Amino acid sequence: MLEKKLTMFPLDKIQITDNFWKGYMELVRTHVIPYQWEALNDRIQGASPSCCIQNFRRAAGLEEGGFEGMVFQDSDVYKWLEAVAYSLTWHPDEELEKTADEVIDLIAGAQQPDGYLDTYYILNGLEKRFTNLMDNHEMYCLGHMVEAAVAYYCATGKRKFLDVASGYVNCAYENLGREEGKKRGYPGHEVAEMALVALYGITGDEKHLKLAKYFIDERGQKPLYFEQERKEHGSEFYWKDSYFQYQYYQAGLPVREQKKAEGHAVRAVYLYTGMAEVASAAEDRELFEACERLWNNIVEKQMYITGAIGATAYGESFTFDYDLPNDTVYAETCAAIGLIFFARRMFEITKDSRYTDVMERALYNGVISGMSLDGTKFFYVNPLEVVPEASEKDHNKAHVKVERQKWFGCACCPPNVARLLSSIGGYAYETSEDAIYMNLFVGGDMETVLDGRENQFHVKTNYPWDGTVTVQVENAEDSTFTFALRIPGWCRKWSLEVNGQDNAFVMEKGYACIKRTFQNGDQICLKLEMPVTLVSANPRVRENIGKVAVMRGPVVYCLEEADNQDQLQQIYLKEQSEFDVKYEKNLLKGVVTLTTQGKRVSEKNWDVRTLYQPYTGKIYEEQTLKFIPYYAWSNREPGEMLVWVRI
Amino acid sequence: MLEKKLTMFPLDKIQITDNFWKGYMELVRTHVIPYQWEALNDRIQGASPSCCIQNFRRAAGLEEGGFEGMVFQDSDVYKWLEAVAYSLTWHPDEELEKTADEVIDLIAGAQQPDGYLDTYYILNGLEKRFTNLMDNHEMYCLGHMVEAAVAYYCATGKRKFLDVASGYVNCAYENLGREEGKKRGYPGHEVAEMALVALYGITGDEKHLKLAKYFIDERGQKPLYFEQERKEHGSEFYWKDSYFQYQYYQAGLPVREQKKAEGHAVRAVYLYTGMAEVASAAEDRELFEACERLWNNIVEKQMYITGAIGATAYGESFTFDYDLPNDTVYAETCAAIGLIFFARRMFEITKDSRYTDVMERALYNGVISGMSLDGTKFFYVNPLEVVPEASEKDHNKAHVKVERQKWFGCACCPPNVARLLSSIGGYAYETSEDAIYMNLFVGGDMETVLDGRENQFHVKTNYPWDGTVTVQVENAEDSTFTFALRIPGWCRKWSLEVNGQDNAFVMEKGYACIKRTFQNGDQICLKLEMPVTLVSANPRVRENIGKVAVMRGPVVYCLEEADNQDQLQQIYLKEQSEFDVKYEKNLLKGVVTLTTQGKRVSEKNWDVRTLYQPYTGKIYEEQTLKFIPYYAWSNREPGEMLVWVRI
Repeated sequence: MLEKKLTMFPLDKIQITDNFWKGYMELVRTHVIPYQWEALNDRIQGASPSCCIQNFRRAAGLEEGGFEGMVFQDSDVYKWLEAVAYSLTWHPDEELEKTADEVIDLIAGAQQPDGYLDTYYILNGLEKRFTNLMDNHEMYCLGHMVEAAVAYYCATGKRKFLDVASGYVNCAYENLGREEGKKRGYPGHEVAEMALVALYGITGDEKHLKLAKYFIDERGQKPLYFEQERKEHGSEFYWKDSYFQYQYYQAGLPVREQKKAEGHAVRAVYLYTGMAEVASAAEDRELFEACERLWNNIVEKQMYITGAIGATAYGESFTFDYDLPNDTVYAETCAAIGLIFFARRMFEITKDSRYTDVMERALYNGVISGMSLDGTKFFYVNPLEVVPEASEKDHNKAHVKVERQKWFGCACCPPNVARLLSSIGGYAYETSEDAIYMNLFVGGDMETVLDGRENQFHVKTNYPWDGTVTVQVENAEDSTFTFALRIPGWCRKWSLEVNGQDNAFVMEKGYACIKRTFQNGDQICLKLEMPVTLVSANPRVRENIGKVAVMRGPVVYCLEEADNQDQLQQIYLKEQSEFDVKYEKNLLKGVVTLTTQGKRVSEKNWDVRTLYQPYTGKIYEEQTLKFIPYYAWSNREPGEMLVWVRI
Repeated sequence: MLEKKLTMFPLDKIQITDNFWKGYMELVRTHVIPYQWEALNDRIQGASPSCCIQNFRRAAGLEEGGFEGMVFQDSDVYKWLEAVAYSLTWHPDEELEKTADEVIDLIAGAQQPDGYLDTYYILNGLEKRFTNLMDNHEMYCLGHMVEAAVAYYCATGKRKFLDVASGYVNCAYENLGREEGKKRGYPGHEVAEMALVALYGITGDEKHLKLAKYFIDERGQKPLYFEQERKEHGSEFYWKDSYFQYQYYQAGLPVREQKKAEGHAVRAVYLYTGMAEVASAAEDRELFEACERLWNNIVEKQMYITGAIGATAYGESFTFDYDLPNDTVYAETCAAIGLIFFARRMFEITKDSRYTDVMERALYNGVISGMSLDGTKFFYVNPLEVVPEASEKDHNKAHVKVERQKWFGCACCPPNVARLLSSIGGYAYETSEDAIYMNLFVGGDMETVLDGRENQFHVKTNYPWDGTVTVQVENAEDSTFTFALRIPGWCRKWSLEVNGQDNAFVMEKGYACIKRTFQNGDQICLKLEMPVTLVSANPRVRENIGKVAVMRGPVVYCLEEADNQDQLQQIYLKEQSEFDVKYEKNLLKGVVTLTTQGKRVSEKNWDVRTLYQPYTGKIYEEQTLKFIPYYAWSNREPGEMLVWVRI
């Protein structure tokens, strides 16, 4: 049995009140969404114009002019609409909804009679459509359109956008496939696969699932479609000098034969997410096993401790097992988000905390590091080691920015952060008919039907700074169901009580499952001990030999120059370090900092003019070290940063 | 006083018999020179054709056709002729000399009435000559022509090539300069500067020195000539996204204002060599001080322990102070050779061993690492840390080859190695009227006039494997002069005896100077103690914190996978390591190996499926480590290599 056992908690039935996450959600609602709307309409002073809305106006015949911007520019408005949709579920906003409806009208106005809807080809010549699926992102835009349309339908109940998207999907279905007269193409940048399964979940239209399944099954079959397509339009293969070749697109081999995560990291995890969705919807065990293999390869050999993935800027891609450089890393925010997408699907199928553990790791570290604490600036690249002079003067590190950038032009990560954070409740909690799973410890109030009866849950916590989580059950009638709480992989010591009883649960795949008849007022109290932990990497990770990372709970810590001076490579932790753990309310919007007595390689017996001299043993100076949460780095003055510290 | 105090020992007056170097010289003579001749004539099976000789034939009107190959293809034959010239001095070869004479006839046949001689423009349209000095290498080819012509004249006494070269120099002089009607251009790739001073040394023609001086003085003056030139031919600036901009060419600032070595490393040290030559010939102290500053910046902040320079493949360039990555390094063989050129000139002016110490460091390590022990394969890039899978799968390390490459196509390093090694005697020994300097401990027989009398010296040594050097003086008449021996900077304990007396010298700038009346049969015996030494890098070098390099005498050692298994990052040296020092006659053509008891980070408590886990302290396994000389790496099966080892 491979069908999904769990689904996201309905976003309109959860009000998040969490100290940590509510702030992020409000940033998205009050800053990111309005700012992006201005950007889509080319109203940001000093920014290169997006042209996204303009392209739709032109495609709809409302104004004259050609296509402008990146070939995938359409997707920006879809991502915006998706974030808007989620936001509307927990914060209704008539004016915003009206704006969204108008944009949807505009999009619908650009749709062609056969359903086609990509402004690049509408404006550049429809006869060329579907001729460069490898690089021109038609199916990528379709995928994001569908994701947004599904979200908007779920949020508002309005079908129009869903119908427009279905129309484009049907057009794709008529043009792509194994049947006579169709092209045997598939997306160059994946995302449509997962979107189509979501659409199928609403429409029940078998064609939607069939197209998703076709995209998955046809990918990488010989002869390679992309190779043929490229030859037809006579273009150079951009990746001809690369190691990965067509695996850049995860299209060099049939997906079932792929054993290692390869190529462009975002595309990869988007594909794997789609594979998991199709495996579940089509009950395809072989495909699921391919997902498991690829998952294992990532988390056992190619994932940063922050949950980031993508070791190199070249092709924004995976490299090879245990290759996790901290300073030339790519670690795109979108890739960590994609890993969360993948994790959620794998969890929904398996109910196994090994997936939600990774979800938590990525979320608290490699994802939210992508946004500044004031919600105005973004990292695409999330390095684990930064030296400002290297970013400036070493071309290999030119992509590693020392400060987050304002968001304009080609923007994938900011709207991805926006749509994830505004739907975070659906990742935190998942349900089945008779169970609710708490994946992430996020405070809030939920209501749902379990055992055929209305139940409400009131969750309070100060996570991730404190490991205590309480859940108050409220119901009018006693209800028999399972309340499952993830016991994090990082946690060595914990207790769980229901109404003061500590033996009211059984462990199942990392979840403490409380199966009982819940009565009004029942109280669940989970206490996770959260000592500071030094973490080692597998000794095959070259970069991290002789180093440790500092964690507390799910949070990875780092050293910043602002607290510890520069030349951070000289710093050593001591064996048996003791840390002073302190919540600093006024620092970085409130964080727990960790202070310890460390040491630093002395420069005392070094002349500034001496580059090499005979080794005279190890000479250190004492230094007090202060660690801050990794996600909060680069919110003060620019400077060096380091996650993996010598010991 | 800045004039050169010393000059190279005349190559025809020295017969090198050294165990270590003679083999290299013979490899060059018997393998490299003949192989390159075949390459120049496009007779290497499977190699992309050089077209070099073909271009000259076409330019001389001997056959039809256009220019083929790189824009600087002419320089290949000049470098070959230079190596041939040196080789003829110590190994006369009528047939080879005849071939060289015929090539010179061919070159002369291509010369234009006004002396111009660059086949690229002769074949592509002379009206375009001198319009892209920045990138099209006309002055680079001229420089190499002059260097070769000077060498060939010194070797054979034949003037023809010298006259041809002078003709092209005169043409350049008529076209470039500050005078009315001339272009204010200078070489994009430096080398002409040093060549012109050498030519001046033979011709005494003031124009030759004046042109060299003009090239140096005009470089980087505002408005930038290269910027204007580029605008005139309307081309994009290739380095527009770079940090270094016109400093790629060392042309962003007047040379006297340059304080850090920047841009393309080979060009940089070629320029600095030319600056030192001009400073000396023109007695220009300000220019010499600029040379000193640039020298200091390199050796105090930007030089690898192997004497290699150039930290990044991007622009084959310097990056910034203390930035010395071992695995993404460029460290081009030619750049280390260029550093030797620069060192020799600075030494000739100063008689200071700080320059010849670096010469020795580069020669025994970063230069000869560039050639395989059988003389058939070459490295352009000389990394200090190699992982084969990274070279294959990480684009940042794609330039780092695990095996030396056969030499064809665009080849700069192999002929540069050839010309250096075949003239090594001139670097080892330098003379003035009343002194002889032994810079490198190279065995051989020399004769020279000192104190107006003929003297012969017979030098015997097994250096670098053994620190004993004996010199036997042979003369018919007693002669009063100074015999100066460099006491290497790496050496802590040594003795020097003349006929058994140990107080017969004074120390001057790192040289033990024996000033006396030498009689026939006098015997000098230098004993340098050569213990194995662990060397640290300045703690500002991020890559080398917590690591040491192993040296013995001038030789840098490394670990190879062949002796020590893979995952070399896991290896640690112990404090107070004791080394077993052993000459292995049959290993790598005879090398001293170093064996010690080290340790390795244990993988025992690591599951292959675990990427991160709580730190459990340091757990090692004992391992016997075997070090080989760095220069000899990659002469067995391909595998990992590491210079900087953890301790």
